[in-house]
Amino acid sequence: MSRNTAKNLGTVSIIGPGLIGASIGLGLKKNRLAKSVIGIGHRRVSLARALKMGAIDRATQNIAKGVRDADIVILCTSVRLIPEMAAGAIPSMKRGAVLTDVGSTKGEIVALIEEMKREGIAFIGGHPVAGSEQRGVAAARGDLFKGSVCILTPTDCKVQELRKVKSLWRGLGARVRVMSPEEHDRTLAVTSHLPLLLAASLVKTVGKGKLPYCGPGLCDMTRIASSDPALWCDILLQNRREVLSALAVFQKELDSLKSTIDGRWSRILSSRLMRAKRLRDTIVNGSNKS
Amino acid sequence: MSRNTAKNLGTVSIIGPGLIGASIGLGLKKNRLAKSVIGIGHRRVSLARALKMGAIDRATQNIAKGVRDADIVILCTSVRLIPEMAAGAIPSMKRGAVLTDVGSTKGEIVALIEEMKREGIAFIGGHPVAGSEQRGVAAARGDLFKGSVCILTPTDCKVQELRKVKSLWRGLGARVRVMSPEEHDRTLAVTSHLPLLLAASLVKTVGKGKLPYCGPGLCDMTRIASSDPALWCDILLQNRREVLSALAVFQKELDSLKSTIDGRWSRILSSRLMRAKRLRDTIVNGSNKS
Repeated sequence: MSRNTAKNLGTVSIIGPGLIGASIGLGLKKNRLAKSVIGIGHRRVSLARALKMGAIDRATQNIAKGVRDADIVILCTSVRLIPEMAAGAIPSMKRGAVLTDVGSTKGEIVALIEEMKREGIAFIGGHPVAGSEQRGVAAARGDLFKGSVCILTPTDCKVQELRKVKSLWRGLGARVRVMSPEEHDRTLAVTSHLPLLLAASLVKTVGKGKLPYCGPGLCDMTRIASSDPALWCDILLQNRREVLSALAVFQKELDSLKSTIDGRWSRILSSRLMRAKRLRDTIVNGSNKS
Repeated sequence: MSRNTAKNLGTVSIIGPGLIGASIGLGLKKNRLAKSVIGIGHRRVSLARALKMGAIDRATQNIAKGVRDADIVILCTSVRLIPEMAAGAIPSMKRGAVLTDVGSTKGEIVALIEEMKREGIAFIGGHPVAGSEQRGVAAARGDLFKGSVCILTPTDCKVQELRKVKSLWRGLGARVRVMSPEEHDRTLAVTSHLPLLLAASLVKTVGKGKLPYCGPGLCDMTRIASSDPALWCDILLQNRREVLSALAVFQKELDSLKSTIDGRWSRILSSRLMRAKRLRDTIVNGSNKS
């Protein structure tokens, strides 16, 4: 977050100022990274709230008007709506502007938007691996991305365009990692989408009756099951193939632990748990907001 | 934590002053619940540390000497050693004294100790559902049990003996729940032992390569995989039958989620995730230290 990036990003338009969108706006304003931040959304209430909390300078429900002057347009809607919103924004964007998104899946989104892109407009897929089980403008925080990782999946852009989006995320305090959309989806299937399935299945297994006896471990393990079901449904289905193969790998691991319990093989069980512990202990450093 | 329980518990002996044992000691002393706290252990270093931090008033490596004057003896070793330590303590305990433990499994422990019990000594199984992925005296805290649940599994004791153990845990800030050893094991298999298996399998699935991209969700979900493998191995094998049936229920839930993704049944997937979310949202109130 160097001082000399101040206001360097020009005008930034945020399509869908919810938890992520409004947090980007707050961070941009707080760190004076943009000349102006425009919020585009369909709900007046959310726009008014984003304005009031200082996440955006101006608000509009008209996508064409909202992106016209933007140097960077960020698609912050649910993954299902991102391609649709891109289709609405691209025709009105000015030459030289950069389009990016924050969707939790990349393969399908990137492919669809690359197809509709026109000369002079760059698209760079993005995914800030941050957030919370909450959603909406009200939960937005200017430091939401501080210390987190943002994955960018450039497929067809110039170096200076990538640099622009990188400096946006670095300005918000995130560490940037670059990978292909495919690698992103494969990785996130394991580190994020699979965990959601496990958390939801675990909650259902626990059921209502046993909840009063849950310790802090169970609480931590099921937290993400509290996130928005509609958002997750879209993510899981968009990344269906990778999610299913992550599930298959997990299933093998679980089955082999089960065998050691079934057979009372205490040495094998113990050494498997030890290997898991060692791996987990290395997570703590590589992670954000543990 | 009423004032009139001050020092009412008399002399309390703690066998195995590690994370849990030393935290009990610290809590007893801080809240002036006991006349005197004696620490019994085989490692001089741990005993010295417990003394120094004020978790115990006296230390001994001799179990017979350590329990002789005790009104309450608390077995705080790993579940594997609890019956063995009970066998060492019972012959030297005075008439009217109460023996209790903090083991994470109850069925086997309670059955073994009930068998070796002698006239005039009561045994009440216990399990404070608290702790952390850390262990050892160094991690002990006097408020470790504050706001947590402690499950007691009385099988053959007088009302006033149960009251004594209840007031010990309430004095430490825990809410007490009474259930049978069988119900305890069935419940904990689901709320604690199953989650450990999932966390360990998930960590192995993620593997080393993907760890730098893990978000806060994955970190939370795998935290318990960092706990002591040897302790967990004992717990999982002692509660083997219940753990396996919890796994079977979980497997059904996971398989049915998998089918909805496989078949792209977005409405069913979404409604299943919604039900999980609603259940999870009710956890937060019933839980400790979320």
